[in-house]
Amino acid sequence: MYGAGDVRIETVPDAHLIESTDALVVVSRAGICGSDLWPYKTMEHSETGRRMGHEFIGIVEAMGADVRKIKVGDLVAAPFLYSDGTCVFCQEGLHTSCLHGGRYGYNDVDGGQGEAVRVPQADGTLVVLPVDKDNALMPSLLTLTDVMATGHHAALAAKVGPGKSVAVVGGGAVGLCGVIAAKRLGAEQIILLDRHADRINLAKEFGATDIVSERGEEAAVRVRELTKGLGVHSVLECVGYEESTRTALSIARPGGAVGRVGVPQSDVMPAVIPTFFNNITISGGPAPARAYIEELLPDVLEGRIEPGRVFDWVGSLDNVPDGYRAMNVREAIKAMIEF
Amino acid sequence: MYGAGDVRIETVPDAHLIESTDALVVVSRAGICGSDLWPYKTMEHSETGRRMGHEFIGIVEAMGADVRKIKVGDLVAAPFLYSDGTCVFCQEGLHTSCLHGGRYGYNDVDGGQGEAVRVPQADGTLVVLPVDKDNALMPSLLTLTDVMATGHHAALAAKVGPGKSVAVVGGGAVGLCGVIAAKRLGAEQIILLDRHADRINLAKEFGATDIVSERGEEAAVRVRELTKGLGVHSVLECVGYEESTRTALSIARPGGAVGRVGVPQSDVMPAVIPTFFNNITISGGPAPARAYIEELLPDVLEGRIEPGRVFDWVGSLDNVPDGYRAMNVREAIKAMIEF
Repeated sequence: MYGAGDVRIETVPDAHLIESTDALVVVSRAGICGSDLWPYKTMEHSETGRRMGHEFIGIVEAMGADVRKIKVGDLVAAPFLYSDGTCVFCQEGLHTSCLHGGRYGYNDVDGGQGEAVRVPQADGTLVVLPVDKDNALMPSLLTLTDVMATGHHAALAAKVGPGKSVAVVGGGAVGLCGVIAAKRLGAEQIILLDRHADRINLAKEFGATDIVSERGEEAAVRVRELTKGLGVHSVLECVGYEESTRTALSIARPGGAVGRVGVPQSDVMPAVIPTFFNNITISGGPAPARAYIEELLPDVLEGRIEPGRVFDWVGSLDNVPDGYRAMNVREAIKAMIEF
Repeated sequence: MYGAGDVRIETVPDAHLIESTDALVVVSRAGICGSDLWPYKTMEHSETGRRMGHEFIGIVEAMGADVRKIKVGDLVAAPFLYSDGTCVFCQEGLHTSCLHGGRYGYNDVDGGQGEAVRVPQADGTLVVLPVDKDNALMPSLLTLTDVMATGHHAALAAKVGPGKSVAVVGGGAVGLCGVIAAKRLGAEQIILLDRHADRINLAKEFGATDIVSERGEEAAVRVRELTKGLGVHSVLECVGYEESTRTALSIARPGGAVGRVGVPQSDVMPAVIPTFFNNITISGGPAPARAYIEELLPDVLEGRIEPGRVFDWVGSLDNVPDGYRAMNVREAIKAMIEF
């Protein structure tokens, strides 16, 4: 990406091993993430450009001398951050705060929207998938690297559980996965706040019980109408704007929780005095996808959840710029690249 | 209180029963709360004045026809809000959000810094104490109506537990009770952020292991030095200013939690992007003291905790204005009124 709206397919030096803990992964599928749209909307022009992509599945082609847990030929899922799996935070299941972890596309680490990636900390990062690369489950498996793990994280942070009422703010791919996660964790009522027909239809199939298409204070009024005037136990904030955060905080019932996974676009959080008096818990952040893949994988493999249905645009590497365009104008919910 | 700095002792109409669920309580002891200092600092002049006080213990003198759980002559503790004990929120232990609850000193309900109080929802609100009104434990029992319950709430919201590292921001009466609560819940390291010698000395006796007297970013640096560079698992925010909130958020380690019980003085929360990337949980609010009294009472009765030591000023009703003054200039940590 060279700037807002400027995504180019270029030939770059081949990905290759550097550290003894690296793996070289040849990418089979990759996703375009909602978070990739932030720079797509706002990035200033750069002479050197920036490697893109952090959601991918691929086949191990080579690995360093210290890699033990994977072997050449394995099909592996790469969580959207790499992590060593051994530091104090990884041991606590918070791989996103790994002391030796990092992001794809920076500092000699390739981006996931490309033919091959050097994956640092391969043993701690990669999860071997028990299927072949043309399996029909590949789209759903790909969501485990980011959006499905993120929806699950939002639901856990919002303390979703059996019998709870849940609101999901924002019906993009993460919000839709949040609906799946809430249903999976036993929520009784799942209210989606969104106004786009394609998202709403999919959300209903995933388990949403109510749709609120109003915004701001009107949305809050509507959610209260749907919840005996109380608000919901759990709110999944899947957007990140100050306005969506304000809405999320305002629809939680006293003692409720807001799980935020939309990357915040403002460094101040609005309207926190009411959340104080209502004892609202605010939690969340980047999802430790590495910790969740093993928990969610059986449900994908056995067909109990189908998060791969969020991919409504599929293209080849050459089509990636059009994938960005389609997501940005909301022609597509989420784009998958097949190699 | 007629305005900032203007507290007067006046004769008002006798407290009396109105509803059949009321009790009339003759006050034995009352506290001046840190939150009473907010209007003491800032209240605009009022012609009618405002009744003050919400922490008290007293003897039941009379009660309405529908009161079942207490009897005339009982010594009772009144949590700082009244609550019916039966609504959906009371059943969940969140009595501060009671659908039929409210505050002392408003709408025909007397203030606690007076000779007698009409207590609404007496069955849901009052807790009978198994001691007489001159018992030496009275100061500690009085803290259960607010500050000790609030310190406990902060510790629960901040997920304090065995072996955890804890920071307490602000060493007022609530912060000191937060130290007691953290110690009681098994914290291994308890860092108090304060700079007043009287508070620091008491905090050390209550179990504080480290003191940080720096402020702002310097305080954060010092806390990280004390915690292997990571920050603490749990932060108890016991002040409420934007600056203390910023400090509290900045010293939590990734995956940690901030329990806020200081009444927020700003409706925006600063520096929330780092808390997002570090997966910090922010929780807390007014403490459901009614829910906690029964849990904390045995520890007070059996002498395992001594929160009453926060009262370092004791006076009669006539001295109340001086109690406010002494707390406001930090001559006293907390004032108790004996009747």
